[in-house]
Amino acid sequence: MNKSRYAVGLNKLAEIDGQAGHKVIESLQNVCPDLARYTIEYPFGDIYSRPGLDLKSREIATVAALTAMGNCRPQLIVHINAALNVGCSPEEIKETVLQMSVYAGFPAALNGMFAVREVLEERDLLS
Amino acid sequence: MNKSRYAVGLNKLAEIDGQAGHKVIESLQNVCPDLARYTIEYPFGDIYSRPGLDLKSREIATVAALTAMGNCRPQLIVHINAALNVGCSPEEIKETVLQMSVYAGFPAALNGMFAVREVLEERDLLS
Amino acid sequence: MNKSRYAVGLNKLAEIDGQAGHKVIESLQNVCPDLARYTIEYPFGDIYSRPGLDLKSREIATVAALTAMGNCRPQLIVHINAALNVGCSPEEIKETVLQMSVYAGFPAALNGMFAVREVLEERDLLS
Amino acid sequence: MNKSRYAVGLNKLAEIDGQAGHKVIESLQNVCPDLARYTIEYPFGDIYSRPGLDLKSREIATVAALTAMGNCRPQLIVHINAALNVGCSPEEIKETVLQMSVYAGFPAALNGMFAVREVLEERDLLS
Amino acid sequence: MNKSRYAVGLNKLAEIDGQAGHKVIESLQNVCPDLARYTIEYPFGDIYSRPGLDLKSREIATVAALTAMGNCRPQLIVHINAALNVGCSPEEIKETVLQMSVYAGFPAALNGMFAVREVLEERDLLS
Amino acid sequence: MNKSRYAVGLNKLAEIDGQAGHKVIESLQNVCPDLARYTIEYPFGDIYSRPGLDLKSREIATVAALTAMGNCRPQLIVHINAALNVGCSPEEIKETVLQMSVYAGFPAALNGMFAVREVLEERDLLS
Repeated sequence: MNKSRYAVGLNKLAEIDGQAGHKVIESLQNVCPDLARYTIEYPFGDIYSRPGLDLKSREIATVAALTAMGNCRPQLIVHINAALNVGCSPEEIKETVLQMSVYAGFPAALNGMFAVREVLEERDLLS
Repeated sequence: MNKSRYAVGLNKLAEIDGQAGHKVIESLQNVCPDLARYTIEYPFGDIYSRPGLDLKSREIATVAALTAMGNCRPQLIVHINAALNVGCSPEEIKETVLQMSVYAGFPAALNGMFAVREVLEERDLLS
Repeated sequence: MNKSRYAVGLNKLAEIDGQAGHKVIESLQNVCPDLARYTIEYPFGDIYSRPGLDLKSREIATVAALTAMGNCRPQLIVHINAALNVGCSPEEIKETVLQMSVYAGFPAALNGMFAVREVLEERDLLS
Repeated sequence: MNKSRYAVGLNKLAEIDGQAGHKVIESLQNVCPDLARYTIEYPFGDIYSRPGLDLKSREIATVAALTAMGNCRPQLIVHINAALNVGCSPEEIKETVLQMSVYAGFPAALNGMFAVREVLEERDLLS
Repeated sequence: MNKSRYAVGLNKLAEIDGQAGHKVIESLQNVCPDLARYTIEYPFGDIYSRPGLDLKSREIATVAALTAMGNCRPQLIVHINAALNVGCSPEEIKETVLQMSVYAGFPAALNGMFAVREVLEERDLLS
Repeated sequence: MNKSRYAVGLNKLAEIDGQAGHKVIESLQNVCPDLARYTIEYPFGDIYSRPGLDLKSREIATVAALTAMGNCRPQLIVHINAALNVGCSPEEIKETVLQMSVYAGFPAALNGMFAVREVLEERDLLS
């Protein structure tokens, strides 16, 4: 049932994104609440709750993809936070972004690394 | 020294890509051997040999990025093979590609999954 | 319920894609049946069945996007067919693709137009 | 004649973009007036004036493409406005952007929806 | 006048693309002759005939861009040929493509280099 | 040796980027100094120091690619400056960006031209 997928999704969203995910959901309420609902149902309710890949690997995959795509900075910021929340170390996240210099070029990796720096600074994790 | 980076890279290439990596290197010899040399030195000599992220996670990141980018099918085929070689299960690879439906859309995930099917078929791993 | 979304999606798939959609679903059965299921549930069950935009406009939007993205040729072929199936004229489809020369460049429009030609030829609609 | 294409284009620009289009043209005068001239001549003089596809459909196609491409926010803002100007309803525009979650991923759709919200807020059309 | 832009474009097309350009034009005649006309008028009639940048530099710019974009292989093949036709050496073309490993990643550069190899082989220029 | 590639790279960076390049390097020191090191070693130490293509052509290629890619504005700004530093005229840079309207669309060219305007304004080169 839709409601069950939504409930599963909300749980997963809380587990992974903490506050950031809810902010996105709220920001959509006055323009397209359905997009918010689908974002909870499909990515979180259907995909992130699947057992075949652990959450740390899922976030590494997403951080890699968003860095390589290069045009989704707000979502990359959310997922760098999510990666930290599910147990990836700052080092693992930096290595993921650095590796994208090979596949998507140095600009993609540099811009991704600036996003990492912004999140680590905000969370007081910059050495 | 360049020679040391090249040697480190060749070792890493053998560990990860087996035959497929060498095919790419050979195919460049009569047009641009330097690109082959840089491909061994930077991606494999410098990046993949770094300790901060395990090889399985590195290949999951690369498969995710190449699926999301959607325009590097030959390299995606190489890395699906590489992911299997370093210990990712077919299920983990499928989950990575499936997850890209969220971040890069269903076409990217579908085309990535067709590449997965091609590799698994070739390696006799299709159930 | 999941089953209801699947049923709605199957109906919409039949209405829009005829045979082509089912071919994609079948081609996934031995590698990732869940991706096939999600493809029916989300794009067709949730999105294409929404009332706020007519089917012709939906297909024009999809043909435009896939032409502009430039890296999803199999899906573009499916949707040029779908656009014809839901009542877009060949002329309307050509105009959509031609317009992408402005937003994504002439290569994207040219490659999109070659896809249009392939579909029209197959359906005996080339003047 | 060039002048005729320019005149046709200026008319079409006024019909579709109102003020926003002229702002872009003016902003180019001190760096590259020829790009402004070509922008009026080709997109508006040649393409948008063609009869084979109605203006509403043209704007839906453009909003879809720019949302999917994900890296042309200023132009997306212009065209969300243009879509409203030529008679698309806010609902039709939201549906177009929402549909891009299927083809280009949720980040593209989310970022496109935030652009929609910005335009609707500016035009006092947010419910 | 349109006819003058077309005539200028045809001349420039002959100067740069030789046979390859005309093949593209002919392949469009039964699906969208207007796209062929616009391709001659805008890229060749308006842009390539401009005096501010020499033809060799123009082709280097185009080869670089198409390599980086990674999803326009047919056009990249045409322009590698064009670059040779206007006086770029095979070495200059290889260097341009190789450099894209920095900005768009190694896959883009590898796929571009395979296109270079194909053209050089066809023109008997492979050492 | 690594150190020699780094030294060669630093020299090339100074020759091309002046201050801007060093700013990027410094901004990475507290998050990922290795990315800064690789950026000096590979792009500048290995690629830009190669003799087969002159520096002016290299910067034209990079400006073209970054304009076409459309999602690396910070790097485009750096390279418009670099192009001026190595002897490209403002006109040559504008022509390169304008030409991208053909290959990547008018939005890419417009956004690239706004970046050109910003740099020229900052360097007091706007007519």
